[in-house]
Amino acid sequence: MPKLDVDALPVNRGSNYLPPYQSQVLARTWQAVAAAGGLTQFGANLVTLAAGSWSSQRHWHSHEDEMVVMLAGEAVLVEENGETLMKPGDIATFPAGVANGHHLQNRSALPCQFLAIGTDRIEIDECHYPDIDMHLDPAGFRRKSGPAT
Amino acid sequence: MPKLDVDALPVNRGSNYLPPYQSQVLARTWQAVAAAGGLTQFGANLVTLAAGSWSSQRHWHSHEDEMVVMLAGEAVLVEENGETLMKPGDIATFPAGVANGHHLQNRSALPCQFLAIGTDRIEIDECHYPDIDMHLDPAGFRRKSGPAT
Repeated sequence: MPKLDVDALPVNRGSNYLPPYQSQVLARTWQAVAAAGGLTQFGANLVTLAAGSWSSQRHWHSHEDEMVVMLAGEAVLVEENGETLMKPGDIATFPAGVANGHHLQNRSALPCQFLAIGTDRIEIDECHYPDIDMHLDPAGFRRKSGPAT
Repeated sequence: MPKLDVDALPVNRGSNYLPPYQSQVLARTWQAVAAAGGLTQFGANLVTLAAGSWSSQRHWHSHEDEMVVMLAGEAVLVEENGETLMKPGDIATFPAGVANGHHLQNRSALPCQFLAIGTDRIEIDECHYPDIDMHLDPAGFRRKSGPAT
């Protein structure tokens, strides 16, 4: 049946960010709804942020389009040029290759939920993190400052 | 700014279906939110169905994944094997190549709104309409029964 039983889908949590950059996202959970529904041409995660949690470290993708649709609660979209409050029904888009690092911060006292839609081009994508000493490319995460030796 | 000013986006209406198959979708409007936000790797339309309207004729795509996220109001998802009520927050997926014709019917007395996300592969996609004498392929719409001569 095409309608998903969202409550029955596995709930993911955790982060493979390099330390110490995981701490702000550990109260984030997500369900991989598009994959659960058999889709392969784009991904969609139903993401819940507990109060205080971030969606990710602020980042932008070289080769992956992204879109966020706010479903419940509120979060602050932090981007290169300022902050915007996102409420249910609000939509934001992040075209591949646009160097505008972005993420969502739940600064409210309640959980918020959004859908994050994007392509998955890990064979060519690079993910840039302007605020921290981390970079992601097809070989994995590394420190921009070089390996800690 | 990544957050879209949805109220400022053009509102589309109409249909290029062959007659007489347009009538059920003429009270449908949509805004092309992903394209407006500069995305090219997938499409997303914010669709509003007036009371009584359908999202489309019942169809399935050979090569395009589709996903629907209900945002406001209610609609009935009609598919090959039955009907399912879609309420705000409900998500349905339609993988490319799965011969399960589907559409949404707004049988309520109020408008409903949903987001329809999908890839755009018109160079190879075929769209099958199991209920009616119409077919779409890269050359355009045609009647399955052949041209009316």
